[in-house]
Amino acid sequence: MNYDDVFSRAAATMQESAIRRMSALGLRAKDLISFAPGFPSPDVFAWDVFREIAASLLDGRDPGVLQYGATRGYRPLVEAIVEMLGARGVRAAPDDLIVTTGSQQALDLTARVFANPGDVVLVELPTYTGAITAFRNVQARLVGVEQGADGIDLDDLDRVAARERAEGRRIAFLYVVPNFQNPTGLLISLEKRRRLLEWAERRQVLIVEDDPYGALHFDDVATSAETRPIKADDAEGRVVYLSSFSKTLAPGLRVAWIDAPAPIAAKIEVAKQAADLCTGALDQRIVYEAWKRGVLEARLPMLRAFYQNKRRVMEAALQRELGGLVSWRQPRGGFFLWAKFPGEVDTDAMLTRAIAHQVVYVAGSAFYVDGRHGPMARLSFSAASPERIEEGVGRLAAAVREEMEPTASGDRPAAARQAV
Amino acid sequence: MNYDDVFSRAAATMQESAIRRMSALGLRAKDLISFAPGFPSPDVFAWDVFREIAASLLDGRDPGVLQYGATRGYRPLVEAIVEMLGARGVRAAPDDLIVTTGSQQALDLTARVFANPGDVVLVELPTYTGAITAFRNVQARLVGVEQGADGIDLDDLDRVAARERAEGRRIAFLYVVPNFQNPTGLLISLEKRRRLLEWAERRQVLIVEDDPYGALHFDDVATSAETRPIKADDAEGRVVYLSSFSKTLAPGLRVAWIDAPAPIAAKIEVAKQAADLCTGALDQRIVYEAWKRGVLEARLPMLRAFYQNKRRVMEAALQRELGGLVSWRQPRGGFFLWAKFPGEVDTDAMLTRAIAHQVVYVAGSAFYVDGRHGPMARLSFSAASPERIEEGVGRLAAAVREEMEPTASGDRPAAARQAV
Repeated sequence: MNYDDVFSRAAATMQESAIRRMSALGLRAKDLISFAPGFPSPDVFAWDVFREIAASLLDGRDPGVLQYGATRGYRPLVEAIVEMLGARGVRAAPDDLIVTTGSQQALDLTARVFANPGDVVLVELPTYTGAITAFRNVQARLVGVEQGADGIDLDDLDRVAARERAEGRRIAFLYVVPNFQNPTGLLISLEKRRRLLEWAERRQVLIVEDDPYGALHFDDVATSAETRPIKADDAEGRVVYLSSFSKTLAPGLRVAWIDAPAPIAAKIEVAKQAADLCTGALDQRIVYEAWKRGVLEARLPMLRAFYQNKRRVMEAALQRELGGLVSWRQPRGGFFLWAKFPGEVDTDAMLTRAIAHQVVYVAGSAFYVDGRHGPMARLSFSAASPERIEEGVGRLAAAVREEMEPTASGDRPAAARQAV
Repeated sequence: MNYDDVFSRAAATMQESAIRRMSALGLRAKDLISFAPGFPSPDVFAWDVFREIAASLLDGRDPGVLQYGATRGYRPLVEAIVEMLGARGVRAAPDDLIVTTGSQQALDLTARVFANPGDVVLVELPTYTGAITAFRNVQARLVGVEQGADGIDLDDLDRVAARERAEGRRIAFLYVVPNFQNPTGLLISLEKRRRLLEWAERRQVLIVEDDPYGALHFDDVATSAETRPIKADDAEGRVVYLSSFSKTLAPGLRVAWIDAPAPIAAKIEVAKQAADLCTGALDQRIVYEAWKRGVLEARLPMLRAFYQNKRRVMEAALQRELGGLVSWRQPRGGFFLWAKFPGEVDTDAMLTRAIAHQVVYVAGSAFYVDGRHGPMARLSFSAASPERIEEGVGRLAAAVREEMEPTASGDRPAAARQAV
């Protein structure tokens, strides 16, 4: 049978995520060191706590542990999220919340309830690939906005939004990751957050604020106060806020959430009902119990120090192995370092060589919605051990140096050849 | 802020599922007896096995238990599903399979990769509401086909398909539930399955075969051979087959699967990547371990007898309490009895009265895509205990009799008033 004609137009535009492709690689090759996926480190999963919680949940007293549950989420968890948000300055009510099957589902549902095919979704340049794929799947038109040292460029934002509207397009929403952005690691300043919200109110644009890394600031260069969600100051109900337990507890549990104005939350609930009925009952209760026992809160200082140390190790290794050949802005939290190599290096072209050296990253092009190629790469320091980070940066350095050397036959560098 | 303009066209058409609404009711009222949702009984969840498996999985030796996983699913589980399908006559390869976050996600992904807004999806009259909502969410045009005693009416199918094509519409697929259909409980005969597949080949229509109940035939009136999937005879690669562990293990684990021709599976994988990245790692491994230990297979005879007994109890109670006022075709498997009351009873209108009597069902109208109202109701016998089934049918009988009686003031019956 020929399958050319069976697919929908949406399916025809669907694209595989570069991160997932790179992750699959990592699963296959045993000695490959992967800086590709934003995996939290399993070394800091709360194994003992989860084991004890799971065993006590499965003692059979509560049928709900293994049953279909409410689409909105397990009610005690919803109420716990209200408390967690409160601690970060966000006033939410249970009617504003939806528990989602990971943050990726939150992105998918958001795209589906807001964006028609052809509608504009404004995103940062670069931005998270998972958001790109979710928004592309509803055939939205992704339009990029430049970033500066403290995140999204408000002048460019205003210019781009005005241009799109002048061309007759509907802006579905602006997608922004204010805390330790994926992939750049940038933190938007509090002052800029305030101005961004004012802009959105003035221009009547909905903001989708994605905040998976907010709890993971690095104490040496950032404070909790600096991660205050835009949503905390959203008096008007213009911000849809997404966050997750994947980075602070475990992604294998697939529990995240959306905090949105109640009329939006009600619509998202209906969308989720048709998408997967409900998020896993056991997963949600494990997360709830971990919160209730204070495990989540107690873990945060440890996690911050743990990932801060990995960032330090990666920065030191990059300095040592590639000093002068790579530059970056110091990540003030999160999982990612956004590395810039010399201009003649095309990180897409270099990938084959890197893999030959048993190291892998995500090429910068994956994060740009404007087709930009170049010398950027996202290096995740979250999953690999400090020793493997050092070894991996060494391998990466070998790949970069080879990529830049003229070959024995006197050819121009491989990267430059690619660019021709 | 006014939210009228923020939603997409797709969102505007999204509708809450009647089953989910009724389920929510059941969660609130303590003494309500619910025949509404198709919940498996928690009395037969393998609590001890799950507890032991979860504890041993969470001993921390395998990071994958709590990590992001492959979008396709946990590889050993994928290979286990190949074996399970083989036992039912279906030859599948790992490249044909996608593990999904419950069957609802399978319906959602299927809709998204095949159907454009306005495309026709052919469904049985009546059909599963979860499928209706998933297909409606992509703005498909749902077109119903009549059913006879052994399921879908092939003459009507051909007539309807021809009409839709003559009117210039693209048929995305036919959705069919051959085993113990939801809501009717009907079983399509083997002969009719063969002819249905021939029809699909002749008319070049894709079949989406949904089979959550196939393993749960009732030995008193059906055999395993009679549940042979259409997919088993699909030489051409025209059938996309869905099934689930929700009814045989536990729905709270959210693990189901799609078996599709490899080019379709590849596309669905990309769609799933953007929908939720991957299905829960812990959930998948619990399911895999339960299969590997033989628990899944060993449970099936017990589950068949268990649900067969509940069907028997419900049938006897209906006969006793409502003999002559209700008719049904005996379910030969699955969770549902499709009850027909006297013509003057409108089951939507009667719902308020039923709830006053502390019993609830899903009104037949929820399962019809042609707006049909009437005297039908889906009664699930799966979740309530035999004692509660008897009590619930007694309450239902009281509601039906009240609904049919002229009121004290000499008015016509309430249901008839509603119909005016």
